[in-house]
Amino acid sequence: MISVNEAKNSILNSVQDFGVEEIPFLKSVGRILKEEIKADRDFPPFNRVAMDGIAINYSFFKNGQRNFKIEGIQAAGSTQLSMQNKENCIEVMTGAVLPKNTDTVIRYEDVVIENGIATITVDAIKEKQNVHPKGKDGKVNDILIAENKIISAAEIGVLATVGKATVKVAKLPKVMIVSTGDELVGVAEIPLAHQIRRSNVFTLVSLLERLQIPSETAHITDDKPVLKSKIKNYLQEYDVLLFSGAVSKGKFDFLPEVFEELGVEKLFHKVAQRPGKPFWFGSAASFCMREQNVYQNGKGNIKKNTIVFGFPGNPISTFVNCLAYFYPWYYKSVGLQIKEETAILNADVTFKPNLTYFLQVKLSDRFGHLIATPITGNGSGDLASLVNADAFIELPSDKTEFKKGEVFNIISYR
Amino acid sequence: MISVNEAKNSILNSVQDFGVEEIPFLKSVGRILKEEIKADRDFPPFNRVAMDGIAINYSFFKNGQRNFKIEGIQAAGSTQLSMQNKENCIEVMTGAVLPKNTDTVIRYEDVVIENGIATITVDAIKEKQNVHPKGKDGKVNDILIAENKIISAAEIGVLATVGKATVKVAKLPKVMIVSTGDELVGVAEIPLAHQIRRSNVFTLVSLLERLQIPSETAHITDDKPVLKSKIKNYLQEYDVLLFSGAVSKGKFDFLPEVFEELGVEKLFHKVAQRPGKPFWFGSAASFCMREQNVYQNGKGNIKKNTIVFGFPGNPISTFVNCLAYFYPWYYKSVGLQIKEETAILNADVTFKPNLTYFLQVKLSDRFGHLIATPITGNGSGDLASLVNADAFIELPSDKTEFKKGEVFNIISYR
Repeated sequence: MISVNEAKNSILNSVQDFGVEEIPFLKSVGRILKEEIKADRDFPPFNRVAMDGIAINYSFFKNGQRNFKIEGIQAAGSTQLSMQNKENCIEVMTGAVLPKNTDTVIRYEDVVIENGIATITVDAIKEKQNVHPKGKDGKVNDILIAENKIISAAEIGVLATVGKATVKVAKLPKVMIVSTGDELVGVAEIPLAHQIRRSNVFTLVSLLERLQIPSETAHITDDKPVLKSKIKNYLQEYDVLLFSGAVSKGKFDFLPEVFEELGVEKLFHKVAQRPGKPFWFGSAASFCMREQNVYQNGKGNIKKNTIVFGFPGNPISTFVNCLAYFYPWYYKSVGLQIKEETAILNADVTFKPNLTYFLQVKLSDRFGHLIATPITGNGSGDLASLVNADAFIELPSDKTEFKKGEVFNIISYR
Repeated sequence: MISVNEAKNSILNSVQDFGVEEIPFLKSVGRILKEEIKADRDFPPFNRVAMDGIAINYSFFKNGQRNFKIEGIQAAGSTQLSMQNKENCIEVMTGAVLPKNTDTVIRYEDVVIENGIATITVDAIKEKQNVHPKGKDGKVNDILIAENKIISAAEIGVLATVGKATVKVAKLPKVMIVSTGDELVGVAEIPLAHQIRRSNVFTLVSLLERLQIPSETAHITDDKPVLKSKIKNYLQEYDVLLFSGAVSKGKFDFLPEVFEELGVEKLFHKVAQRPGKPFWFGSAASFCMREQNVYQNGKGNIKKNTIVFGFPGNPISTFVNCLAYFYPWYYKSVGLQIKEETAILNADVTFKPNLTYFLQVKLSDRFGHLIATPITGNGSGDLASLVNADAFIELPSDKTEFKKGEVFNIISYR
């Protein structure tokens, strides 16, 4: 049995490159940017009027002039006007190009207009005020967004501004999520007394959806030849297989054997943690016909690795292991920096086993402090307790007493 | 000009009910639950084996017996076995029903099996251990998820478990996002010297997508009759109109007049804040033919309100106002509790105007403390600065000096 940190390291050493694809920019929210976004021109691209009002040549104001004859109107979206007489002014609109021969904008609130004459009613006018100078926010070819950033609404605005109608992003892995366990029936079915409905695969689908990763699901009966033949195909077809169940010590926990027989290299089985201990993790080098990242082998087939996460079947075990292992594996695979999040424990906790304890907590924000209050569940089968929590706090295995006020890493899922 | 708090109150007094719809549960992530989810049976629904091993009748162990003849195997998903001879044991698998006449499970690790006899190798056995008793996590008809919760992966698992193949959620509002401004050209176009590309509508689309709200977009030229005729139709067709631009003092800022002429009630125009001051907000009672919440008027048409958010056209202004006003309006409309988030200011800030200051900040987590470090932008036109920040910190208007270490509300957007 290895430690949680050893398990994390093993997983982070098994990252995959799924390649890059180009997609319409408006579909790219939540995806990982795979190119540098540069300014295609200066920003702003011209001396930009920043207030509705009049534009003047400041030197005349400085010399005491207060009445300015209105020579015209510079609307946003019109070609630049040129003020013919420098003593005059031009009405200007926010977003317009500052007219030639003007340098300062006085907002309408500080002006009275009568009979074509604008009279400035305040004395506190600064030269070049209310003008957003060309290139102030950025010069052409400046890097506006670095590679490997998650695209959010903020980035969408920049992509639109620089004309990136399509954008390069990390390709998504092709994922199959498999449930096992003959006690499981479909969501729309009425279970018999000894049956329960499938739920873990749908939890996993939703956890992957948070990362924008679409996935497929399947259920395989607890029958070794059937498992073997189906998984053999999945190893050819998918970048990642996620399993829930059949990795523990039960008579029908065939997955570890099946993986071995199919040549999936076991990187570890069992991690010193609660819940989620019987976690199986491995990697298979498959030769297959599909076109995906990677290199050609001699026979014209394509070699790639399929990564296999065999999560224990208890709902909380599957849930926490997906967050604690699949998430960082995916983040590193697509080039994202993994950020650790911490919170302040809000109660004393005693946990004697020599295991890392992933304890469910409810998070709350108090004056800039993130407070983690333990939620008492009924063990790893108690799915409903996840609803009342927001995160897991990770209490390390080398201690048994954890005090209110101490700070630990958390994995939040909302 | 009203204060930020007055503006927020006005907006929260204008919430709308979009009604309820029933959708497939797996499509419901991010939506707002509009029914109580109750347990359809006890959880677990039977005394559930929680470890792979053997099930015994504890009284025999207590009396000193250590060797138990294996009578059979109880697999997960099989109907309950009944142990014929109470001195014997039955092999049991995680997830299986505990066999009749057994009450305690000993895991395989603590047992040696030879010639059909299981010998228990440890003394520390507790009665009923490794059994997850029927109904421990919940009784039939217990409320597992309260109404008005955002559905996440945790809730998806519970919905699947109780057989909610479809689920009632808040309907989404029908939203039109309109840009104005003749300086704007399309994302795929090459702008002339005095033009820029449209970006605010796409930023708004993405900010609404974060709330799972789909939206449509349009651009209307700065021409009053055209604006009026198009907006008249939009008021009939949509629950919410979001505008970016044309609400300030410019000659072509026709929107406030057009809204008035179309009978949209102005609830406020201009808020004491920077950026985002010229924000216009109103509500129109429209009679229209479409079927939506609300009541029938005498003529067989349907009366409803359309809510109009007229955001100022500067990118940062549009962005912060969508977060500060549209978001809470939507949350309250669908019954969500609005949670305030706070952070610790990481630098001294001076801001003299008598305005609420929405300052861009980069967030970082230090030992459970959320730290907000100001990002210096170049004013409300500087879209690229949004990329370097994560949130706005809201510095109140009644002070001018804000000190490092003080705590303020934030609005985060990542």
